[in-house]
Amino acid sequence: MNLKKISEPITEELKEFENQFSDVLKSKVALIDLITKYILRQKGKKIRPILVLLSAKLCGEINNRTYIAANLVELLHTATLIHDDVVDDAKTRRGIASINAVWKNKVSVLIGDYLLSKGLLISLENNEYGFLQLTSEAVRRMSEGELLQIQKARNFDATEETYFRVISDKTASLIKTCCKLGALSTAEDMSNVDKLGVFGENIGIAFQIRDDILDYTGRKKLLGKSTGNDLKEKKFTLPLIVALRNSPKKRSAEIMKLIKSDRTRKFDEVYEFVMNNGGVEYAAGKVREFSDNAKNSLRDFKENNVKDSLLEFADFVSKRDY
Amino acid sequence: MNLKKISEPITEELKEFENQFSDVLKSKVALIDLITKYILRQKGKKIRPILVLLSAKLCGEINNRTYIAANLVELLHTATLIHDDVVDDAKTRRGIASINAVWKNKVSVLIGDYLLSKGLLISLENNEYGFLQLTSEAVRRMSEGELLQIQKARNFDATEETYFRVISDKTASLIKTCCKLGALSTAEDMSNVDKLGVFGENIGIAFQIRDDILDYTGRKKLLGKSTGNDLKEKKFTLPLIVALRNSPKKRSAEIMKLIKSDRTRKFDEVYEFVMNNGGVEYAAGKVREFSDNAKNSLRDFKENNVKDSLLEFADFVSKRDY
Repeated sequence: MNLKKISEPITEELKEFENQFSDVLKSKVALIDLITKYILRQKGKKIRPILVLLSAKLCGEINNRTYIAANLVELLHTATLIHDDVVDDAKTRRGIASINAVWKNKVSVLIGDYLLSKGLLISLENNEYGFLQLTSEAVRRMSEGELLQIQKARNFDATEETYFRVISDKTASLIKTCCKLGALSTAEDMSNVDKLGVFGENIGIAFQIRDDILDYTGRKKLLGKSTGNDLKEKKFTLPLIVALRNSPKKRSAEIMKLIKSDRTRKFDEVYEFVMNNGGVEYAAGKVREFSDNAKNSLRDFKENNVKDSLLEFADFVSKRDY
Repeated sequence: MNLKKISEPITEELKEFENQFSDVLKSKVALIDLITKYILRQKGKKIRPILVLLSAKLCGEINNRTYIAANLVELLHTATLIHDDVVDDAKTRRGIASINAVWKNKVSVLIGDYLLSKGLLISLENNEYGFLQLTSEAVRRMSEGELLQIQKARNFDATEETYFRVISDKTASLIKTCCKLGALSTAEDMSNVDKLGVFGENIGIAFQIRDDILDYTGRKKLLGKSTGNDLKEKKFTLPLIVALRNSPKKRSAEIMKLIKSDRTRKFDEVYEFVMNNGGVEYAAGKVREFSDNAKNSLRDFKENNVKDSLLEFADFVSKRDY
């Protein structure tokens, strides 16, 4: 079960997307061309274009509008990653040096802005105002969700309700948008667009819970990033929230105090606390729940290899260990 | 001659804009509300909304579309400044601590993204696709222009032609867009939109040349930033380009070598070189030329206090020493 197998029903279309995407990145400014060629060499997983293409193909015939949607979300995603790396001062991305490591922060931010404007422009040129509406809404929710998470971390707010609000905004909103855009580009029946929206929302949430579990249990080598980052930023993710809830008040208060402290070795103790108090198990159960919801949302579509791929995608998201 | 006097014909409308802008910034996330209130306290000069309102009033009756345009450009401009301060690691903005100094880089970038998405959303909600087209084009040109400037600086390219291409993209494109958006919101005759576009392009260029002169001659206290920054970044701006061109080859080569070096005290010598070889005078002449072009572009509009203000704006841009 991997992304290559999942994208088999859209092999040709994914190639066509890649060609178009590399054309979209071309610029008359040599420095931009140099950097975008570097971006293409980084070879991302292309999860978002794959979701656009599969959703589109499930609802009808892939067409020019589908490719516009795929380009739009990949431009937005690429810009976001580049800006993230600046903010996090990340030195590598996808195994090679990050844009900011090679070209510095200023150039990185400008390239991100350039990619965002390109996404807007290809949508506007093709009168895809509905695409822009959905995508802008997703950008608003992504930034709002992240800011809400930071605010809650500062207040040591650790409720499951807040957690789900945050991840629905910061992660699921864009995944949901990918599926809806794909469906919008081909569907004749608008109720199918909504079904793909439900699918995307649920795999988005499952994806993020899985990510938050891996921040406790993941191995550095596989994940490509170290564990314990959320704790460092005092983020209360589901495994920790649940472990705190499951424990006697006194013990929870001790752990809270430890999290508030800046003790560097706190991760080991909190890790053990989370593991011993059912945090990871509960979160893993939630992943399965949302993954099942996602699969269930496709029940009315007829069986074919595209539907199989989307169902496999839901499994992939809930089982990935990287 | 100051901005307060220039905005007299739109005093009421500017107040209405300020009210709307503070409403637009409201969010259900408390942290966002806190930061946007801080942004409003920074009290920017509002040059861009002023240009939108004056351009609109010159061409017709200010209406709801005018305010949408003013909000759009101010949201974009505010987002850009916040992101700039992150990239430049600036500690202050408009006399008080910058957003990144108070809330750190991550929050700053997210707030910038949030403001950008708000600008998109208010345009989309009001079906102002033409506004979005012009604005996205400006964002593309702004990032392309800045990247071209960085590329040319690395190659020690010092031609007047490149210089004008860079500043037309990185600075004039947004000023031009402000004037065009304002005119678009009210004009019945589309040729008036073009005239305001020419006005904006020319004051934008004049504004940037003046800025580049002040980087040599400006006093720290008035400008709120130190001089010699362009030289530090090895940017060839008009005063230097002209001085190099006016000097014997041997002397120019010496100065080029000095610029390429990382000698910290090079500014004094280059400053003297630029002053003694007509760099600043030539650039000041160009400022007047573009400022006159701007005024000339309005010759067909009937005389009134709005036109007077725009003409004064052209003078303000070319004479400002801050």
